[in-house]
Amino acid sequence: MKTYLQCIPCFVKQALRAGQMSTNDENKIKALMDRIGCRIKDITLEQTPPEMGLIIYDEIRKITGIEDPYKNEKKAHIEEAKRLYPELKKKLQSSEDPLLMAIRIAIAGNVMDLGMDKKFHIENDLEHILQRDFAICDIDEFRDKLNKAEHILYLGDNAGESVFDKILIETLAKPVTYVVRGRAIINDVTEEDAIDSGLDEVAEIISSGSPAPATILDLCNEDFLKRFEQADMIISKGQGNYEGLSETDKPVFFLLKAKCPVIAGDIGVDEDDIVLLSAQKTPMEK
Amino acid sequence: MKTYLQCIPCFVKQALRAGQMSTNDENKIKALMDRIGCRIKDITLEQTPPEMGLIIYDEIRKITGIEDPYKNEKKAHIEEAKRLYPELKKKLQSSEDPLLMAIRIAIAGNVMDLGMDKKFHIENDLEHILQRDFAICDIDEFRDKLNKAEHILYLGDNAGESVFDKILIETLAKPVTYVVRGRAIINDVTEEDAIDSGLDEVAEIISSGSPAPATILDLCNEDFLKRFEQADMIISKGQGNYEGLSETDKPVFFLLKAKCPVIAGDIGVDEDDIVLLSAQKTPMEK
Repeated sequence: MKTYLQCIPCFVKQALRAGQMSTNDENKIKALMDRIGCRIKDITLEQTPPEMGLIIYDEIRKITGIEDPYKNEKKAHIEEAKRLYPELKKKLQSSEDPLLMAIRIAIAGNVMDLGMDKKFHIENDLEHILQRDFAICDIDEFRDKLNKAEHILYLGDNAGESVFDKILIETLAKPVTYVVRGRAIINDVTEEDAIDSGLDEVAEIISSGSPAPATILDLCNEDFLKRFEQADMIISKGQGNYEGLSETDKPVFFLLKAKCPVIAGDIGVDEDDIVLLSAQKTPMEK
Repeated sequence: MKTYLQCIPCFVKQALRAGQMSTNDENKIKALMDRIGCRIKDITLEQTPPEMGLIIYDEIRKITGIEDPYKNEKKAHIEEAKRLYPELKKKLQSSEDPLLMAIRIAIAGNVMDLGMDKKFHIENDLEHILQRDFAICDIDEFRDKLNKAEHILYLGDNAGESVFDKILIETLAKPVTYVVRGRAIINDVTEEDAIDSGLDEVAEIISSGSPAPATILDLCNEDFLKRFEQADMIISKGQGNYEGLSETDKPVFFLLKAKCPVIAGDIGVDEDDIVLLSAQKTPMEK
């Protein structure tokens, strides 16, 4: 997805929020805003928004010296999600369509996003999303691809959400490789977070190498690119991965909640809608 | 009022909105955002937010060549307000406290603000504000000062709102000098707009010389500064003038709707509250 003009004020807001999370020193935060402001020119509208995310968190590291401002929040979200895990597994067992329910659960986990200017309350949001209609639901294509797939590449998004991903992976009942970011950025899931979430029990864990809060192919490592190229089914969680991969022709299924109006508009749904979207539908079908 | 960190994303949003109002050329707007971003460093937290407003509109002029992007909107707002004028005068005549009603009307006009990211519907907003309780209402101090004042300096804010100011000026029944900005900026009232609003029938009109969307004393002309220094009562309309003058020790009364959370917080009220605030109350009284 390209960068829209409306993304620009949002970048600055995100930088402020992350700066305030990293330090209480008003002067340091102002210095960060000065730097971020000057770097708006380094992003073209042809690039994807998470490439600016990468710049923002690089500047935060430089100015505050803090490598991972969301470390504690990530731990807390994983613990919170783990506490909900047994109850969600029960819900799944009593569901008429466990696969669709597991997809819903995985999407519900996607509210645990600290890059967004929205507060979330995971238990309330879960309840809401589990009952919400999909704005786009390519479940037939998903089932079809799943049946034929020998192996699934699963692109993780946020820490905490990763525990909900585990539930979907268990339900898929196929060999899965779970892909994490190349380094800590916002509250995106890293290898350490994936292991904390118990994903090593159900999947192979690899890093895409992407240091951005998204799967940006130009920034990924060779091992990942080879697997991505050859995958017979790819599950892509969250907005960041959508922003990086929206124009792919690979067998990608985007599972996300459209938390921002720009991404909702790009997909063609309303803000807060949930979608299970096949990337291989033609633009006409989309 | 100093610039708060939260003002910075808002500056960028405002620049985008104004850029989109001035041109449809996405590349020009991106160039504007690049420039505005780089100029965040030129504003310190000790300066007032409208000083950044000044920078934003200077950059818009440079990049788009458009001197007054809100010209048509200003005309339309003045016409709309004039259409409401007879009805509001009637309302005033049947009011038990015409002065307080005229103050309410003048504050209601303050919703006509294109610098804000809020849509307004003047008739609905009027109805709402005319019935709303004041969060701060220094009406006793206002009456007292008005009774003693020989002359009132009235600092205008937006075009359109200016017609509502005329109603308050007529009710004050004292000689009034109405102060406009030094040049067109956002939809702030200029000399031409004041005359269009019929203010020349009820007041002397002068320019403060301030090119910013606020009364920034460092940017005002000598004639205005002398009058400001000697005034025995000053009525200051809107957020911009508050931002410029919040620390004054002069006999200023701020009439405004707190349309932004930062200004509301600075005054100590809630967003959307209406206030009639005497600048001469001690901080303890405030």
